Amino acid sequence: MLSEPPNNSREKTKNLLLKLQDQICEGLENSDGKGRFTEESWIREEGGGGRSRVLKNGSIFEQAGVNFSEVKGQELPQSIISQRPDAKGHEWFATGTSMVLHPRNPFIPTVHLNYRYFEAGPVWWFGGGADLTPYYPYLTDVRHFHEEHKKACMKVDKNLYKVFKPWCDEYFFLKHRNESRGIGGIFYDYQDGSGSIYKGKNKDGKASQASREVGELKLNWDNLFSLAENCGQAFLSSYQPIIEKRYQQNYTEKEREFQLYRRGRYVEFNLVWDRGTIFGLQTNGRTESILMSLPPLARWEYGYKAQKNSREDFLTSIFTRAQDWDNDKNLEKFCLENNIFD
Amino acid sequence: MLSEPPNNSREKTKNLLLKLQDQICEGLENSDGKGRFTEESWIREEGGGGRSRVLKNGSIFEQAGVNFSEVKGQELPQSIISQRPDAKGHEWFATGTSMVLHPRNPFIPTVHLNYRYFEAGPVWWFGGGADLTPYYPYLTDVRHFHEEHKKACMKVDKNLYKVFKPWCDEYFFLKHRNESRGIGGIFYDYQDGSGSIYKGKNKDGKASQASREVGELKLNWDNLFSLAENCGQAFLSSYQPIIEKRYQQNYTEKEREFQLYRRGRYVEFNLVWDRGTIFGLQTNGRTESILMSLPPLARWEYGYKAQKNSREDFLTSIFTRAQDWDNDKNLEKFCLENNIFD
Repeated sequence: MLSEPPNNSREKTKNLLLKLQDQICEGLENSDGKGRFTEESWIREEGGGGRSRVLKNGSIFEQAGVNFSEVKGQELPQSIISQRPDAKGHEWFATGTSMVLHPRNPFIPTVHLNYRYFEAGPVWWFGGGADLTPYYPYLTDVRHFHEEHKKACMKVDKNLYKVFKPWCDEYFFLKHRNESRGIGGIFYDYQDGSGSIYKGKNKDGKASQASREVGELKLNWDNLFSLAENCGQAFLSSYQPIIEKRYQQNYTEKEREFQLYRRGRYVEFNLVWDRGTIFGLQTNGRTESILMSLPPLARWEYGYKAQKNSREDFLTSIFTRAQDWDNDKNLEKFCLENNIFD
Repeated sequence: MLSEPPNNSREKTKNLLLKLQDQICEGLENSDGKGRFTEESWIREEGGGGRSRVLKNGSIFEQAGVNFSEVKGQELPQSIISQRPDAKGHEWFATGTSMVLHPRNPFIPTVHLNYRYFEAGPVWWFGGGADLTPYYPYLTDVRHFHEEHKKACMKVDKNLYKVFKPWCDEYFFLKHRNESRGIGGIFYDYQDGSGSIYKGKNKDGKASQASREVGELKLNWDNLFSLAENCGQAFLSSYQPIIEKRYQQNYTEKEREFQLYRRGRYVEFNLVWDRGTIFGLQTNGRTESILMSLPPLARWEYGYKAQKNSREDFLTSIFTRAQDWDNDKNLEKFCLENNIFD
């Protein structure tokens, strides 16, 4: 039996995620200086609705999308029921805030964030995370992004980051390219305070191993609420310093072309592998809001190969592989020697 | 029991499809004038291989990809076995030629073609088709493309086109946008000369209705081989006159932008709905060859709405809907009145 959520659980999470959308949009407008978010509110026939916010053609962001939604339905789809069988036959409630940022300057990474909460009869859970997709490799940026999210997780439990980091590597993976989407971050799902914290499918993976080492972790609803709150709060401090550091770096046409090429991979991940996107499109989601994650411009090029030992090569061979960014001394040395440390 | 294929069935189909690739590439180089195909041959570990040909940055084609493959395996995937249960437990053979053309000028449509042949134990079948995706609406171009494919089908049986046309509308459909990929053409699958010619899933659809009206159609292996041959041959004559008619039409930046935006839909269809693409990516296909169908450049724009009664509006509201292009007099009148007839 799961612990009971508080009486006002839906209101609490909804307000948390609305506030998160507000804070992020405000922070991003400050970083951008020029661009402003426009908002569209929408209502879903089956219950609930949302507010979609988009900033286009800013000075930093070619496109930034930050969506909040709160939706209800009669029964969850089979793909979720198979993970949470006790939800079967129950009405459900879900609320979430999700964000994808596509900066124009190829030295500023694309970034994604999503925090969400579900209830269905006796079942409830939290899910979420944030992950970074650089176009050009800088180890210090990667370390900073991970560090901020690690600190946020640590506030709730010292064992969370060591499972959520490899879970992120495992989830944001393009099997057909044998590449990660980027340098990872944190990812978690189906967190209801029961059993092991890893609830993924890859039983031989690093996240699963780390979770077995941690053992069963008792977290209550309030802990998991705080986790979403802390991680959500960590986003701006994980990302804004990277913008500050990179936005004045000039880039060439060739670097822009490489960014557009790599954005193609972002499209491939989201349309082929991302469970949320596919589920939304194949059922009755709001297509324009779901696909706000897609880049404003993307390229494909048959048979592209980066020049050996170029930064484009290192991006693909090192920065789209799961790495121990903080502790791998060989990696650090390599990055220092090849001018991709800072 | 299916009729037996001839002894040299694999060699015959392979040679047909190799010749088709050659003919198409030669014809497209002639149309382009400047661009030349480069070829990469590849071998598949599990058996077979292929030759991928790509033309980049031509005077007409921003990118043209024409692939031939001939592959073998131990057992077909479950998604095909569920359609052809007698193939279970048998080694399989498949050969196919597929093509996607992305012209630079937005007045020349994108076009796709695929013809294929399978054998697995006692089971064999042909599949294929060709469909056109215009960016700007011209009824005469649409009619010409359909007319050439209709004639090719008619040479084999007068009833084929009336089923393959709606089957194409049904297959190349983006459910999440409630739009067709383009103006259709012909599509067929699992043709083994037994039973009804429609073997799709949509039992209430127009293709299914037309097939019931036709009744069981006895076609032997040779008829179906001729069908692939005739339809394959029809491609150049269905498309080259459209190039000739349009390539000198000047276009504006805005028209180019609309083309790039609509190319985003092409990406969405191929990655979210196309069975062949998804199957290839989720198993062990040659990713670069499979994704040669994706456009060299594509855009997404949140909340885009074409101006009412513009050609961009007519493209979406009329030319991405299943229509009776040849016989609908109201449609003809509308196109004449709105300068989208020719």
